[in-house]
Amino acid sequence: MANDEQTIRIPFERLKSEFLRILLNIGFSQSGAEKCAEIFTMNSVDGVNSHGINRFPRFVKNTLEGIIKPDAVPSFEHRFGSLEQWNGNLGPGPLMATFATDRVMELAIENGIGLVTLANTNHWMRGGTYGWQAAKKGFVLICWTNTCPNMPAWGATDPRLGNNPFVIAVPYMKEAIVLDFAMSQYSYGKMEALKKEGKMLPYPGGFNKNGEITSDPGEILESWRVMPVGYWKGAGFSLLLDIVATILSGGQSTHQIHSCTSEHSVSQVFIAININTLHNFPSINNSIEKIIGDLHESNRDCSSSQIRYPGENVVELRKENLKNGIPVNSKIWNNILNFKR
Amino acid sequence: MANDEQTIRIPFERLKSEFLRILLNIGFSQSGAEKCAEIFTMNSVDGVNSHGINRFPRFVKNTLEGIIKPDAVPSFEHRFGSLEQWNGNLGPGPLMATFATDRVMELAIENGIGLVTLANTNHWMRGGTYGWQAAKKGFVLICWTNTCPNMPAWGATDPRLGNNPFVIAVPYMKEAIVLDFAMSQYSYGKMEALKKEGKMLPYPGGFNKNGEITSDPGEILESWRVMPVGYWKGAGFSLLLDIVATILSGGQSTHQIHSCTSEHSVSQVFIAININTLHNFPSINNSIEKIIGDLHESNRDCSSSQIRYPGENVVELRKENLKNGIPVNSKIWNNILNFKR
Repeated sequence: MANDEQTIRIPFERLKSEFLRILLNIGFSQSGAEKCAEIFTMNSVDGVNSHGINRFPRFVKNTLEGIIKPDAVPSFEHRFGSLEQWNGNLGPGPLMATFATDRVMELAIENGIGLVTLANTNHWMRGGTYGWQAAKKGFVLICWTNTCPNMPAWGATDPRLGNNPFVIAVPYMKEAIVLDFAMSQYSYGKMEALKKEGKMLPYPGGFNKNGEITSDPGEILESWRVMPVGYWKGAGFSLLLDIVATILSGGQSTHQIHSCTSEHSVSQVFIAININTLHNFPSINNSIEKIIGDLHESNRDCSSSQIRYPGENVVELRKENLKNGIPVNSKIWNNILNFKR
Repeated sequence: MANDEQTIRIPFERLKSEFLRILLNIGFSQSGAEKCAEIFTMNSVDGVNSHGINRFPRFVKNTLEGIIKPDAVPSFEHRFGSLEQWNGNLGPGPLMATFATDRVMELAIENGIGLVTLANTNHWMRGGTYGWQAAKKGFVLICWTNTCPNMPAWGATDPRLGNNPFVIAVPYMKEAIVLDFAMSQYSYGKMEALKKEGKMLPYPGGFNKNGEITSDPGEILESWRVMPVGYWKGAGFSLLLDIVATILSGGQSTHQIHSCTSEHSVSQVFIAININTLHNFPSINNSIEKIIGDLHESNRDCSSSQIRYPGENVVELRKENLKNGIPVNSKIWNNILNFKR
């Protein structure tokens, strides 16, 4: 068995069955384990190992610590019209968010638009998961989550804002256009990886300890002053996403989610729009096709190979990884194989 | 009369009455002129002259050119549940957006959440106007507009995306927290002003002709390669805002709004949420107060005087300008005084 780290390819069913085995072992029900294993595997299939296989060990750890309750189910709190508030009861984030996405689509079928909030839920892993889930069924989905404090406010040095990932997804050509972005320019994971390789960030991504803007990931990891997207704009956006998630869900806000190492009990918002009900529904796919066509005709600068829309590369990558196996780190894979409680 | 440019203070009623005189002169109804004059004046009161007095001459010009139809009213297209599609009929943007905001609040009163779209409307001036309008009445408002193509896609050199201003507003302490930001890091107006003063942008705001990131406003005005907020993230956000505005309204997308000098027939989305209906409504103001309290306790870096939330300075500025008069450029003021058809 290889001890040195390398990238190996693992077939979808093989990866999923290992996740399933472990989840069943740590208290998940059969159906919960099936769904969670599927989501973690698909995140890796889609090229997002950071919220797929690489994150799985922490998810298991958090479950064993009792931060994630493997058998919790969402409970209904309140409904008014096409708006519902639910409590995640500290259940597994991906299961709670999948539920909320299904539920908000039902509300949108009834009313054109629906809103579902989750209080007291857990990290949903990759926000794009729920964008794909809804858009593939024909809905526009806007959703976001708050997080622990991991980014300073604009002009501040200590982290009090979350990076609060935000998703917009739109159905397109039986697939989807899915934007999924955090309010910090680079993730800590990305910066750590580049630092390890001795590389600079491609664009400035934070401040150093002297308050100077920098592209050196080591300096940012030292100061913890990661850059909000668009400087003051992303800082403001992060704040508003937290405020709206908090007040619509009645759950915790970023400042109440003290610890980033054991982040739990976050708040989430899901808005779905049923585009089937629109007067222009028959022309929608064609409208998007023209927008994308125009985008693709952009003049490229010398460094760009292609101009793509968010999620464009996912469809191809998915096909490739389902055919050839999912690229994973051999060391992480071996840890998963060797997991015993 | 001063010919050289200086900043002078004009009382609210004086400024508004000049706007009113001119609007009545160019075909507005009494009530339409009243509302429009109020909005332009308030934008200047709130310190946003770029979409107040400074923009007014172009608004008049566009009306005289027939791009803005002063007497047009919105017409109903379609309703399903709590979702409505309206046609702006090329009417004055601020009147159409005010209407849409009022209407979406009615839908939210009925259903908790409402969605109104406008096709074929015009520039709404300052998006924050509608955020304040809704939040002061107790609603969370999320709204956005598309624009003419004025920003390149990520990795592209020619402008095919709009800067698509996006607004989130929340009621707070009988006032509001209002985030209103465009997807480009700096506006062309801001860059032109700094270039004129021979100053650099405080942070990188675009690319020069060689594709290098730059803080020199002159270089960006030459290349037209303004930076999206958060680099590729803001470019993706801009694209999705355009796609969603286009498909939900059935109106034009950015690529169809050819000319930026005579931009017209844009598409807009308004989502309102009635927080009165939430189970946690009684504690909402207190929740926000704690979030803001935590934000204000941030450790400031040496360059910051205060850490503020979006819209925080507006309340004070409004009070000051209503008391002492609105600071305006004397040359622009004289042009307005001298306007005759």
